[in-house]
Amino acid sequence: VTRTPSPAQPDLVLVNGEPSGLSPLDRGLHFGDGLFETIACCQGRARFLSLHLERLALGCERLQIRLATEGVVRREIERLAAGTGDSLIKLIVTRGAATARGYSWVGDESATRVALRYPGPHGDEAAARDGVRVRIGGLRLGENAALAGLKHLNRLENVLARSELRANDVAELLLFSSSGTLVSGTMSNVFIVHNDRLMTPRLDLCGVLGVMRRVVLREAAGAGITVEERVMAADDLNRAHEIFLTNARMGIWPVRELEGRMLSPGGMTRRLQALMKPMLVGPADA
Amino acid sequence: VTRTPSPAQPDLVLVNGEPSGLSPLDRGLHFGDGLFETIACCQGRARFLSLHLERLALGCERLQIRLATEGVVRREIERLAAGTGDSLIKLIVTRGAATARGYSWVGDESATRVALRYPGPHGDEAAARDGVRVRIGGLRLGENAALAGLKHLNRLENVLARSELRANDVAELLLFSSSGTLVSGTMSNVFIVHNDRLMTPRLDLCGVLGVMRRVVLREAAGAGITVEERVMAADDLNRAHEIFLTNARMGIWPVRELEGRMLSPGGMTRRLQALMKPMLVGPADA
Repeated sequence: VTRTPSPAQPDLVLVNGEPSGLSPLDRGLHFGDGLFETIACCQGRARFLSLHLERLALGCERLQIRLATEGVVRREIERLAAGTGDSLIKLIVTRGAATARGYSWVGDESATRVALRYPGPHGDEAAARDGVRVRIGGLRLGENAALAGLKHLNRLENVLARSELRANDVAELLLFSSSGTLVSGTMSNVFIVHNDRLMTPRLDLCGVLGVMRRVVLREAAGAGITVEERVMAADDLNRAHEIFLTNARMGIWPVRELEGRMLSPGGMTRRLQALMKPMLVGPADA
Repeated sequence: VTRTPSPAQPDLVLVNGEPSGLSPLDRGLHFGDGLFETIACCQGRARFLSLHLERLALGCERLQIRLATEGVVRREIERLAAGTGDSLIKLIVTRGAATARGYSWVGDESATRVALRYPGPHGDEAAARDGVRVRIGGLRLGENAALAGLKHLNRLENVLARSELRANDVAELLLFSSSGTLVSGTMSNVFIVHNDRLMTPRLDLCGVLGVMRRVVLREAAGAGITVEERVMAADDLNRAHEIFLTNARMGIWPVRELEGRMLSPGGMTRRLQALMKPMLVGPADA
């Protein structure tokens, strides 16, 4: 399995709706004081846009960032998506340019919105069909309840974890937290199947509450599958009958090998892939 | 004690030596993939510049960021410092604009350098003389050995911790890690004195290795004071005879009250302040 290379550069970048540069005073740069969303767009439509906007709004609420009305953001994404066939849109929202020196925010900042559009297809049919090779990463994720779940801009852990991944035929690394619980991949959420039970790590101490994770939880529950968010450890991986990864861009990737142990994409993974397929190939919202 | 307000806005901002904006593709914005230094400048000279540049170089090495030669950076800071009397210079170094999508860096990025100069005095004589009121923060810092010690750009923890500090007569919050060890303030390092022993938390799992912390450790050792970096807990605070805070801008601030417990700036704190004074008031390097 070779991974589809991501388009290297965006064909369109807007800062607060204009093709301009960013203020060097922006608190996104200074502190990572902001959030982002990566939205897959198919046939000119932004997939799961309402879920992305909902997570963004929740993140802004937790960080007390006052974003422009949802309508403005939604229309910007829809317009960008409509301008091309398939694309990936990355939306960054920061608290805005600093109005004082130091970590504290004053409250009079005006949020910055950066939208970047990467044209081209983003799925990877071979990975979804055949599964991917995965290893365990050495980096341990810090635990912080105040940041857990948020797709915030403090991503050095992901950057460093990802840099461990040098072999080109390994698609992802699974990461544990500093206290030894299983969290996620470097850019994906993880699910395991044990007997007929579907499980995914709780993300109340670290990790990102992925949009595709949420969709899988919803669809599984809707199909009557028992699904559980819980504290998980290395042993849960060892005992897993199936393992799969999710993110908004790639949908569901079965894990076919974990640290040398062979797994084949199993019945539950296939069933969920089939359930999700109509939502992934066509332009679908929520 | 009222705190000296920081100057709100810089009078000079340079991006790679030019008064320009920042690329919205910069990995500093996207991931906090970079480092910073805050350098106090007195009478036109950058204080402890060699120590700041040394820490920056070590950080770049750990993150594998290839910065311009030290000479270029040093001359830029010196030129900025010389252009005014007292000032604070914030230098941000990032891995540069992304040359591909996603967390991984490619290796062909060109580092970005942002220098901001905040004019005006930065000390606080009343705080250094009378001491400051301090409380314990509720936020627990995540632990990650790969990031510990670095003055990196992932500072949402500090931003959120600082936002707990609403009472204007409290100068700083002391923070513990997720595993319950004492780490630092939100913007300072912490030292405690117990009997005649000087102690400060080890920072191998979280926290920033402050330049002023390093100077205090060096000066104390040079003066024959027993000094120890070790794992510290709440009980060490309770038993402390003296507590003080350090950072490159403020030097040494005695803690005169911690969570309602009165402390007076003690003999060790005063002795170290006296040792440091020549380095703080005059233009000194290294």
